[in-house]
Amino acid sequence: MARLIATLGTSPGGIFESYKNLIEGNYEGDNVEKVNIDEVYIIRTSDKAVEFAWKLVKAIFACCGAKGVHVYDIPLSISDINSRQDFLMFKREVESKINEGDFVDITGGRKSMSVAAAISAIKRKARTVTTIVPQAEYNKVQKLIKELEPREKEIQMVGEGKCQTIDICQLVSKSALTILLS
Amino acid sequence: MARLIATLGTSPGGIFESYKNLIEGNYEGDNVEKVNIDEVYIIRTSDKAVEFAWKLVKAIFACCGAKGVHVYDIPLSISDINSRQDFLMFKREVESKINEGDFVDITGGRKSMSVAAAISAIKRKARTVTTIVPQAEYNKVQKLIKELEPREKEIQMVGEGKCQTIDICQLVSKSALTILLS
Repeated sequence: MARLIATLGTSPGGIFESYKNLIEGNYEGDNVEKVNIDEVYIIRTSDKAVEFAWKLVKAIFACCGAKGVHVYDIPLSISDINSRQDFLMFKREVESKINEGDFVDITGGRKSMSVAAAISAIKRKARTVTTIVPQAEYNKVQKLIKELEPREKEIQMVGEGKCQTIDICQLVSKSALTILLS
Repeated sequence: MARLIATLGTSPGGIFESYKNLIEGNYEGDNVEKVNIDEVYIIRTSDKAVEFAWKLVKAIFACCGAKGVHVYDIPLSISDINSRQDFLMFKREVESKINEGDFVDITGGRKSMSVAAAISAIKRKARTVTTIVPQAEYNKVQKLIKELEPREKEIQMVGEGKCQTIDICQLVSKSALTILLS
């Protein structure tokens, strides 16, 4: 069993796609095989837009075909990376969550968050992945997210398993490419 | 003497600010001191917008107070990171440019480019920095860049030292914060 540790920014795009592509063995890397992921850890700031993105991620995992996986939310007290202290705090947190053999998804969040996660992954002998969503599809998803903003309560219901409330799976890219970086 | 190796995307923002803050000893890190930088290497893709960003970087270094520094352009044949092969090619290139003790600026370019640069910096015992430009100022600079797009030929002249052609230094942020990441 492996774990997926993912950084999250204002867009949910990428994390579920990374998870799905890994469990299906559908990614670019050496020695590609299906990865048995039973736990997903989302590390994020407490910014409002990021909080909303977390609710979307939770809803997507609840309703778009994830099976036998626990998704954990790890919100940090900072709202952004505005100083070296913020960066070091974020790095300390992400590193403490990574075990040898884990997969670390650096797709979401600020660039410095991705770098913190990738550096930590190397130190912990974990693997780093990212998922590329084609620009046109990414823009479409961003537009949909904007439209969903006033429906936060309904999205929370979707996250609790009431999947028919909103078609949340339209936020999942069908042509996302997952790449093993290290 | 140290070198600055920087990734570049569609925005020139960050590289000159990193350079300036490093040489002035104006950054967040342990044992902060003025860094004597005599060479800057810009590693980038051959995308058209990135090519334009390079011309802006060159013009900024020519006219906004850099002294005794050579700026080298390293364009790769790829136009983006669209596959693992692209990523590995980019990583190989950036790693080959980094020596022990160099500073590697991961501010510009795709997230996977920043991660490639940060991983390479650790391997080569170089230091990694990033520069944060406040969002409002970043947006202002992006707007200015858009306005400068039709004036590519004049920008090229500025890059050759004809500094009075365009006030290129308005693209430099005055409140950029540079952080030593590792």
